[in-house]
Amino acid sequence: MTDTALDLAQKLIACPSVTPATGAVFDALEAMLTPLGFEVLRTVDGEEPDGPVENLLAVRKGPENSRHFAFAGHLDVVPAGHGWSTDPFEPEVRGELLYGRGAVDMKSQVAAMAAAAARIPAEAGTISFLITGDEEGPAMFGTRALMKHMAQRNVVPDLCLVGEPTSVNRLGDMMKIGRRGSVNIWLEVHGTEGHVAYPHLAENPIPKMVAMLAELDALVLDEGTDWFQPSNLEITEMEVGNPATNVIPAVAKARLSIRFNDLHTGAELSDLVTKIAEKHGGIARPVISGEPFLTEPGTFSSLLADAIRAETGVEPELSTSGGTSDARFLKDVCPVIEFGPCNATMHKRDEAIAIPDLETLTRIYERTARAALAL
Amino acid sequence: MTDTALDLAQKLIACPSVTPATGAVFDALEAMLTPLGFEVLRTVDGEEPDGPVENLLAVRKGPENSRHFAFAGHLDVVPAGHGWSTDPFEPEVRGELLYGRGAVDMKSQVAAMAAAAARIPAEAGTISFLITGDEEGPAMFGTRALMKHMAQRNVVPDLCLVGEPTSVNRLGDMMKIGRRGSVNIWLEVHGTEGHVAYPHLAENPIPKMVAMLAELDALVLDEGTDWFQPSNLEITEMEVGNPATNVIPAVAKARLSIRFNDLHTGAELSDLVTKIAEKHGGIARPVISGEPFLTEPGTFSSLLADAIRAETGVEPELSTSGGTSDARFLKDVCPVIEFGPCNATMHKRDEAIAIPDLETLTRIYERTARAALAL
Ligand SMILES: [Zn+2]
Ligand SMILES: [Zn+2]
Repeated sequence: MTDTALDLAQKLIACPSVTPATGAVFDALEAMLTPLGFEVLRTVDGEEPDGPVENLLAVRKGPENSRHFAFAGHLDVVPAGHGWSTDPFEPEVRGELLYGRGAVDMKSQVAAMAAAAARIPAEAGTISFLITGDEEGPAMFGTRALMKHMAQRNVVPDLCLVGEPTSVNRLGDMMKIGRRGSVNIWLEVHGTEGHVAYPHLAENPIPKMVAMLAELDALVLDEGTDWFQPSNLEITEMEVGNPATNVIPAVAKARLSIRFNDLHTGAELSDLVTKIAEKHGGIARPVISGEPFLTEPGTFSSLLADAIRAETGVEPELSTSGGTSDARFLKDVCPVIEFGPCNATMHKRDEAIAIPDLETLTRIYERTARAALAL
Repeated sequence: MTDTALDLAQKLIACPSVTPATGAVFDALEAMLTPLGFEVLRTVDGEEPDGPVENLLAVRKGPENSRHFAFAGHLDVVPAGHGWSTDPFEPEVRGELLYGRGAVDMKSQVAAMAAAAARIPAEAGTISFLITGDEEGPAMFGTRALMKHMAQRNVVPDLCLVGEPTSVNRLGDMMKIGRRGSVNIWLEVHGTEGHVAYPHLAENPIPKMVAMLAELDALVLDEGTDWFQPSNLEITEMEVGNPATNVIPAVAKARLSIRFNDLHTGAELSDLVTKIAEKHGGIARPVISGEPFLTEPGTFSSLLADAIRAETGVEPELSTSGGTSDARFLKDVCPVIEFGPCNATMHKRDEAIAIPDLETLTRIYERTARAALAL
């Protein structure tokens, strides 16, 4: 008799793997997948400061010309923090809940994927696991590196399901068919320091910064699309650092964050903000965290929705809300959708998944993979 | 033979008296004034945190109904700082210069006042010294306390000369007949913290602060007066303190400094800024450092200008520029004007006064006091 998703989830939670994940937690996953016929590639990618990072690529080949369905996820977790009622790295079943860091983000999902794969015969088609040890960290050498290894080995899935916890109030109520892009932009205006009693000998950078921020704050980037809410710009920081009441400071700094839909690119928005900054005598340093992605509703979303409906009776909302995920990289390879359990306790103390949901999730994953391979 | 101003200045500089000044430096001044016939009152005023502060009030009574001329100044100095070529608290004569902390701000002037008083017979009229140990510090219990002691003793000068270093390029080129007032105002806007991906659940205080600052920066307070430059508002600080690129912060803070002429009061400007802050959902906390003062050009400025012209051949500019001084308190008692040596090395390393200027200054002070007592 094979392990249940609950057994596997407990094994993964029992391996502490605060980002970046290394060693034992990957050994545990490899030990689950190898008996199922997966060929497992373990890699260590990148250098300081954002590496090295451990990743895992597992492929179980189906018959020639069969379709290829990929499960994607991560084994690293955010730090435990304080105030847990249990040891966050000792999985504990209490009532209908499984407690532990990673219980919903996202060791339970990796376990459910493995349990689902165990129920699908190899003849159904090719299944792969794209599992990174660095999704919660800088993510420079996580899924990006996995994609390089896939390209080198000619591993090209037809569809990819990312197991992020997308459900909100009950399992199945939301899947993510897209995510907004994200760019953070650091702004600076340089002036000339001086004494407030002699303003003509100084050049205060703050009024220029204020005018710049007012213009940036007034921007309307778009009105939203069929699938995305309007792009949004938030000023998240202003900093001068001048403790002296009688001094006109030399430099004013600020920072903004834009979450944008697929009407824009990070580069185009960086240009726009840079032009406005320069108009006001300042400079802008943009760092693009991710471009938006959208898997337009269609075959993939329908077969996932069918599986959810069949197993839960719930009609999932097709959403593009929230932060970024590794789907921002995977979208370059194939259509990608995210679906997983309720995210209420994600990144919080006493992170826990409902055990019945874990079994239902396994069946949804199984049903989705089977349907995708049968297309 | 009496001590010269140079002898006296060296004695005062040799007593280290980083603000607040205590003990020895007052003993030294008392030892100069007592032989000249001054009755010396030493006081210790105020409590923590802005006290206690030592002050000195010396009066030499003239004949009944004679006029009363006051010299005002301070014996505390700012810290020495680094990089001196001599010991800042060991007066050193090198060539035509006397070096030491306080050489221009303003132990030399106190010495020149004492040397001038030594040359004026008591019969000429009443002369007093109003000397504080806390002008460079909080100034809560310095000249303010001296004024209380004066009121209690019914010491009411007709005119007061403050010895701040007002000359710019050569001795005599500038006196101060007024100073602008000063108010610092702390601004805050409170919002609701949240995640940039979910702006509808947060309330970003920064756009409100930016709009508030833009309105404040656009204010035109006045166009200046015959004697004052236009009042000026400078934003001197903006602070949010949010290191997280994906967080909408809860609070935005800023600070501004207004230097204002006698068309305004600190209270009126505090009200104006508070109304604008509240309009934008913020709050304002004003701290008034000083109200403006103006001794309109007339008898006093003329007799000081005459003395300067007679001793130096220079025509002094009647200015109201620069920071605040203790004249902001003394103006409530009698007309007050400030005059002293060149301020180029004030508060800097290698602070020094030209020795010939020190003797000339003594003669200007003597001539001014004699003329004022003869009015
Ligand atoms: Zn995650
Ligand atoms: Zn001074």
